[in-house]
Amino acid sequence: MGNVTTLDRSGTDIEALMARIGADARAAADVLAMADPQAKSQALVAAADAIDAGGADILAANRTDLEAARTGGLSAALIDRLELNEDRIAAITDALKAIAAMDDPIGTVIAEWERPNGLRIERVRTPLGVIGIIFESRPNVTADAGALCLKSGNAAILRGGSDSFHSSRAIHACLVEGLASVGLPQTAIQLVPTTDRAAVGQMLTGLSGNIDVIVPRGGRSLVERIEAEARVPVFAHLEGIVHIYVDKSADPQMAADIVVNAKMRRTSICGAAETVLVHRDAVATHLPVIAEALARAGCKIRGDATVVANVPAATTATEADWGREFLDAIIAIRVVDDLDEALEHIRAHHSHHTDAIVAEDAATVARFFAELDSAILMHNASTQFADGGEFGMGAEIGIATGKLHARGPVGVNELTSYKYLVHGNGQIRP
Amino acid sequence: MGNVTTLDRSGTDIEALMARIGADARAAADVLAMADPQAKSQALVAAADAIDAGGADILAANRTDLEAARTGGLSAALIDRLELNEDRIAAITDALKAIAAMDDPIGTVIAEWERPNGLRIERVRTPLGVIGIIFESRPNVTADAGALCLKSGNAAILRGGSDSFHSSRAIHACLVEGLASVGLPQTAIQLVPTTDRAAVGQMLTGLSGNIDVIVPRGGRSLVERIEAEARVPVFAHLEGIVHIYVDKSADPQMAADIVVNAKMRRTSICGAAETVLVHRDAVATHLPVIAEALARAGCKIRGDATVVANVPAATTATEADWGREFLDAIIAIRVVDDLDEALEHIRAHHSHHTDAIVAEDAATVARFFAELDSAILMHNASTQFADGGEFGMGAEIGIATGKLHARGPVGVNELTSYKYLVHGNGQIRP
Repeated sequence: MGNVTTLDRSGTDIEALMARIGADARAAADVLAMADPQAKSQALVAAADAIDAGGADILAANRTDLEAARTGGLSAALIDRLELNEDRIAAITDALKAIAAMDDPIGTVIAEWERPNGLRIERVRTPLGVIGIIFESRPNVTADAGALCLKSGNAAILRGGSDSFHSSRAIHACLVEGLASVGLPQTAIQLVPTTDRAAVGQMLTGLSGNIDVIVPRGGRSLVERIEAEARVPVFAHLEGIVHIYVDKSADPQMAADIVVNAKMRRTSICGAAETVLVHRDAVATHLPVIAEALARAGCKIRGDATVVANVPAATTATEADWGREFLDAIIAIRVVDDLDEALEHIRAHHSHHTDAIVAEDAATVARFFAELDSAILMHNASTQFADGGEFGMGAEIGIATGKLHARGPVGVNELTSYKYLVHGNGQIRP
Repeated sequence: MGNVTTLDRSGTDIEALMARIGADARAAADVLAMADPQAKSQALVAAADAIDAGGADILAANRTDLEAARTGGLSAALIDRLELNEDRIAAITDALKAIAAMDDPIGTVIAEWERPNGLRIERVRTPLGVIGIIFESRPNVTADAGALCLKSGNAAILRGGSDSFHSSRAIHACLVEGLASVGLPQTAIQLVPTTDRAAVGQMLTGLSGNIDVIVPRGGRSLVERIEAEARVPVFAHLEGIVHIYVDKSADPQMAADIVVNAKMRRTSICGAAETVLVHRDAVATHLPVIAEALARAGCKIRGDATVVANVPAATTATEADWGREFLDAIIAIRVVDDLDEALEHIRAHHSHHTDAIVAEDAATVARFFAELDSAILMHNASTQFADGGEFGMGAEIGIATGKLHARGPVGVNELTSYKYLVHGNGQIRP
């Protein structure tokens, strides 16, 4: 991607293209803000139907992407993210229908109160406007992100990874078909029709005020570059450097079950655990149970000296292994003297995403909850529940690790703002 | 203020000073996040007592500022904003005590629900961290902003206008006395101890991640410069280009009462009305009542051709008078054909702050509320109610006109973020 100056050099064609996309998005957003909730839902159902009907075309487009990816020597993990099949297409249409079926957030009264002078004040949800989503190679993000923006009354400008360009374009065509079928602007969900990286640089300038917020979906380097270069607000979604602290008061079997699930259910998601901290008084009682369960599940252990001395299969962790997102069947385990040392370690290494404690002692849990400032803190539960769907919020556009506007899972409500409606009957201020 | 490059030239001393202030603020914020609510309240009450006891010193400091302002030829309006007297000092201590008496937001459960798998999810308020406030010459902002940040568990870095430097410093000393009296970090509320504008440039860089959000309090040029230059999020508080639409269904006397109050109660606040749009069918019935009431109150009228033809005292408005913040006893009046023309005019000229409709027809009001996206929309009430206190939110740090995080009056709740606490009993994800 390079820096903004480099990007700007790549010419006025991209600049003109992106300026038009921005202006079209703003015009569409003005229509969407007042769109009939039913029309938005019907557009999403129609898009799902179009994806069902056009499955063969989407798979053909995906094969084009996959061939280029294999030729280009992409890793097996990235090719797995990129690959579509009938099941994955069904998952995309299911998600569209689920978002269609959700309550419409726009116009919802969030709060309402009356003043002594008779003024009645309502706070009602409004769209943010235009949301720019910059994502990597997962083609399903095209549908998920577009649908969440539409449901929340926002226009979307999607910029997918070049690896999934054809797949995203085929899915996007179905979204446009859905919009057209109910008479909503076809520019409500736009896909940047070029893989030229200058387009990203243009989006980060805000397109002359025509992008209200940028949502990056991807690895750390993508998110950090975007945060550094963006001239518009960014909902930061940093990686999950997820810690689990196993207290001496923990149930050993529960600790083992939670650690194995938190690491191994899926190792590639942001809620996957990376580091386990075990209380020193639990080394004899808990550590063997946890280590054996991890080994049985096929997980490698990198530990500190105490762990290596107690777990035959463990290798020695390097300094770089603390706070590292393995995204693989590898976990780091360290023994700590007490809760304070655990908190200190977590503060030094976490990404403010999700951290968990396994403990039965209520005072210890209360301190863990009060003294850590992660977007999500879990007690006696797997960190893989860090997910908008699991929270009951429906689909999510990601897990925000910043503190402004939205934090944790970002669903349709989190993609809204609000305005105040004040109802009077002639009040003037003394 | 100049641009960032210019500011950076002014040397490493300011850079080192501001780096230290940032680091101290971050350390204080970590303490404040877990501070006892009672300690925070007591600090504010003690600060109010210190201001009471030190009133003579504050007035002496204020006289120094006033002399410099008069010598420097500051306008009467600015000198009025700068001037303190016993009543204004009493208002400052009253505000401190009112903020002290408010409920503490931190740790409040905003929402709570249970999932079918037994997970109990709480969303609880947390502080934002470190808030930088850049303000102009009103010395009371020192106390208000510092107190709101403390109450919401945030550390504050205050950078006041050079005109009020001595007054702010005297008030700030009392805030520090309050903090010290309860053992809270004296760096919880810091005042930048220099009028060198390079300090502002440093704050806008975010002080190496040690400022989480900037709140500008001042005129349009200050806010626009800060938004353009800041590398950290800004709660934009643009000026209020406030419109009132008088529909043909309005009660004429109510319309006149509201317009006069909205313009003339105080002409210098952001909720003061600047433009009135009158439905063409109300020219004969409503316009004379409104115009006469304005004239009686001492307000000058600048109108379009129809207004000038119907109101003897009116002069012709120039194009620049539409969307102009007069901050004075001058109002612009235009006749519109219908609601659509009114909405079009408002969209072209407002600042998304506050706009009002006077009407009895419910369908017209509903359209006005649905189709405009101002932070605050009023029906049959004076726009001078656009105020956190009048909304029942206690004191405010300003009225946000952006759409992200906080919109409308920004009180203590709006200066917070949240985190999720998830309570389980061994749940693992299937």
